[in-house]
Amino acid sequence: MQGASRFNRRAIKVGEALNLVLEAAVPGRRVTVPLREAGGRWLAESLTATTDWPPFPRSGLDGYAVRSADTALAAPESPALLRVVGTVAAGGLALAPLEQGTAVRIMTGGAVPEGADAVVMLEQTADALGAGDEPAVRVKSAAAPGQNIAQAGEEFRRGSVLAEPGTRIRPGHVALLGTFGYADVPVFARPRVAIMATGNELLPVGAPLEAGCIRDSNSSMIAAMVEQSGGEPLLLGRLADDPAAVEAALASALQQADIIITTGGVSVGDFDVMAAIIRGIRQNESADKLRQPDSMGYSSQLDYADNTQHSNSMEHAPYSESADNTQQSNSMEHAPYSESADNTQQPNSMEHAPYSADNTQQPDPLPYLLFDKVAMRPGSPTSAAVINGKLLFALSGNPGACFVGFELFVRPALLRLQGVSAEACAPRMMTAKLASNFEKGSPHERFVRTRLFSREGELYADPLAFNKSSMMASIPDAEGLIRLPAGPSGAASGSVVNVILLD
Amino acid sequence: MQGASRFNRRAIKVGEALNLVLEAAVPGRRVTVPLREAGGRWLAESLTATTDWPPFPRSGLDGYAVRSADTALAAPESPALLRVVGTVAAGGLALAPLEQGTAVRIMTGGAVPEGADAVVMLEQTADALGAGDEPAVRVKSAAAPGQNIAQAGEEFRRGSVLAEPGTRIRPGHVALLGTFGYADVPVFARPRVAIMATGNELLPVGAPLEAGCIRDSNSSMIAAMVEQSGGEPLLLGRLADDPAAVEAALASALQQADIIITTGGVSVGDFDVMAAIIRGIRQNESADKLRQPDSMGYSSQLDYADNTQHSNSMEHAPYSESADNTQQSNSMEHAPYSESADNTQQPNSMEHAPYSADNTQQPDPLPYLLFDKVAMRPGSPTSAAVINGKLLFALSGNPGACFVGFELFVRPALLRLQGVSAEACAPRMMTAKLASNFEKGSPHERFVRTRLFSREGELYADPLAFNKSSMMASIPDAEGLIRLPAGPSGAASGSVVNVILLD
Repeated sequence: MQGASRFNRRAIKVGEALNLVLEAAVPGRRVTVPLREAGGRWLAESLTATTDWPPFPRSGLDGYAVRSADTALAAPESPALLRVVGTVAAGGLALAPLEQGTAVRIMTGGAVPEGADAVVMLEQTADALGAGDEPAVRVKSAAAPGQNIAQAGEEFRRGSVLAEPGTRIRPGHVALLGTFGYADVPVFARPRVAIMATGNELLPVGAPLEAGCIRDSNSSMIAAMVEQSGGEPLLLGRLADDPAAVEAALASALQQADIIITTGGVSVGDFDVMAAIIRGIRQNESADKLRQPDSMGYSSQLDYADNTQHSNSMEHAPYSESADNTQQSNSMEHAPYSESADNTQQPNSMEHAPYSADNTQQPDPLPYLLFDKVAMRPGSPTSAAVINGKLLFALSGNPGACFVGFELFVRPALLRLQGVSAEACAPRMMTAKLASNFEKGSPHERFVRTRLFSREGELYADPLAFNKSSMMASIPDAEGLIRLPAGPSGAASGSVVNVILLD
Repeated sequence: MQGASRFNRRAIKVGEALNLVLEAAVPGRRVTVPLREAGGRWLAESLTATTDWPPFPRSGLDGYAVRSADTALAAPESPALLRVVGTVAAGGLALAPLEQGTAVRIMTGGAVPEGADAVVMLEQTADALGAGDEPAVRVKSAAAPGQNIAQAGEEFRRGSVLAEPGTRIRPGHVALLGTFGYADVPVFARPRVAIMATGNELLPVGAPLEAGCIRDSNSSMIAAMVEQSGGEPLLLGRLADDPAAVEAALASALQQADIIITTGGVSVGDFDVMAAIIRGIRQNESADKLRQPDSMGYSSQLDYADNTQHSNSMEHAPYSESADNTQQSNSMEHAPYSESADNTQQPNSMEHAPYSADNTQQPDPLPYLLFDKVAMRPGSPTSAAVINGKLLFALSGNPGACFVGFELFVRPALLRLQGVSAEACAPRMMTAKLASNFEKGSPHERFVRTRLFSREGELYADPLAFNKSSMMASIPDAEGLIRLPAGPSGAASGSVVNVILLD
């Protein structure tokens, strides 16, 4: 495979590549987990309030429930004297309606009796004796109607939505779900992610170094990133640069995993085994297309608006890109998925169970290429394809490029498999000001590892040293990836840049 | 316990309370985990580069290794013609030194032969035939010395530190550790955290609601927060407001856990069982102090400088507070710990093993109080004590206050138990601009749930509705906690505030 054929890959833009990935990824299987284990998982169903909340008018503190009118003239030197007719502990039964001139002792969380419309905090009262030595209380200031009472239904109405499918379950969601009685929670199964490293130069991590060789550090790095993204890594080890062996390993991985990630061998080198396999897919696809002359061209169904100049929130920032659909991709005619497909027909991930392929019943769909070059640095040879309906990501062997490829494409795919909406799967972005000049221009957009810090409400991005794709020294310190647009001259200190936030 | 005694708690400042917690918390037991499972754990030892990195001069791309001087006059119309004397694959052995007028084909990651001082990318060359039909290559542009070569030792020198103890292991660290052969990684054991909810009004999450009652949602919320912080939650269930039963449950929890968290019962209500237990500790402590007249007063060993007006990075922002040591705490005379103690003598957490208390050999140290009131809203009754050398946190039963109490005090303690430096344990803070007025003043500093968004490089905090301590509706949406100083009038839109970042 000498000559030009290995160079004629068409580079597509990052946003276009991401769209292709997200169209090929569909939410996976659902499982149920106990509430106490639901934190950090992604919700699989819309869950609603099972009752109004609070379910009864609730005291916000310890004190006395009163009729506010009875305290209208109260002051420290002329307190209102109210007869105490009972006590409401949290969890106690509601009392009879409160009559004029009376009060009830009430604890935080207690049900405010009918007739009472305010709670006075204990510290603003004094014990007293009323007529006939009955227990009484002096209230030292006028209570406002509604004071210190959470009204029934104030926070939630029965049936209102607590969280939508694809929501990552945070501790606050856990509190809500517990409040409304969800002892078990429907979540998406963890995607199983096969990880393989290719390259004759690779040694196991535990081995002594040999001349010209390096240890396979990418597999463990990717495993850590998969865990961060909710997936279950399956480390399938190292493979020599032997196409037949790699193809066999891929076939085996397809039986076990929902997504496959390879590292290394994607560039234009003579022994770049993944590049050869990807070329094979492209060539088969071209042959197949000749047999399907009326296949439709690609048109993006996802609309990533350009928001470079606008606000974007930490939570909802879409991955912005000026859409450029003038270059049509030829890859979608084989796509077996649609966003609205009933996912019982889809390949599923398994939770704590051996994998049983549902798709043995049906012929495997033909593999198809998503992309084999992306207009970005680092990581331009990053490639992706769909085989047997499953995503294959062929990431660069350079650790910096491998890292960027994962953040831009694999993490979004893992989120999509766990039900996150396509829009919310894109990398989280914020805007920040460059803390120093970044002088290097680039013909493609560039992702630069950076620290982030704030000063007087302004967010600053300070690019890290050791930012070459082959370097990993600065990966642990990177809090973000500055996304610099293509251009001849980099960006000046103080200019506003988009930054992808890293976990 | 009627009357004034339950009101005379002395409120200490948040920073002071945090210092007391961090002085009482010490790094726990160490365990070793495989590299592939090390992501997200906290490193227990300083790990260093076991070799220079790269270990040899390494080609950054696929192309030809050349002597740059041989290409000095090369241009597309007048390429330099070099004889190709061999090929270096990644992992291949180094070749003989490169002689003048020659080149070697080299792959990404290949060892650059002696004599070569530049690599020309394949795309800038053309195959050719030299004299006598020898293989040759045309180089179309002048190569700069060092071009596309990573020099040996460029990123790391042997022995240089890769990461310090207490570092949270991110994917980039995993890559570094793999590169240098650390197949097993020393990390801190997960702290075991007992969680108990108190209150007669509490039902299990799975139970139907009863009049005046609510479900125990705090326990599951806390469990999710413990998991986020690297701890292992032990859910010990609900307890009635019965001091004897709660004391017995605490004694049992002390046998199983490294930290104990209770929720509810800390306020001034008649049935506030945790408040009664905390008062008991305070009273025992006072009696004990009478027997130790020469005990020393407290002086903080941690120095949290006031950085409100200065920059703070996302990673290293100390929890800022104008130190106020005029009010001396009386709690430190019993402290059995010091920061430099050999922690083999300390109570240890266990990893996948039943708990065996090391401290059965020695008499239990007396319990002592850290604080029973904090000058903050919400959560002022938040209390902490040390029993048998272990931290007890009594958090509010109000979900909003419980959440804040965990973020301010429990999460830092869990990080400290996992080796994070005391300075880095404090909540992560940034500065942001208020996106709207927050008009409510407060006699104590206030923590307000907020969303965060960026616009043109400025970070904005937009306070959420439903921010009362009893409300949980906005907890899931909170991306931060605005820290508003005490004052009569809140803060105006556009003013710069400190914000604690939430996971």
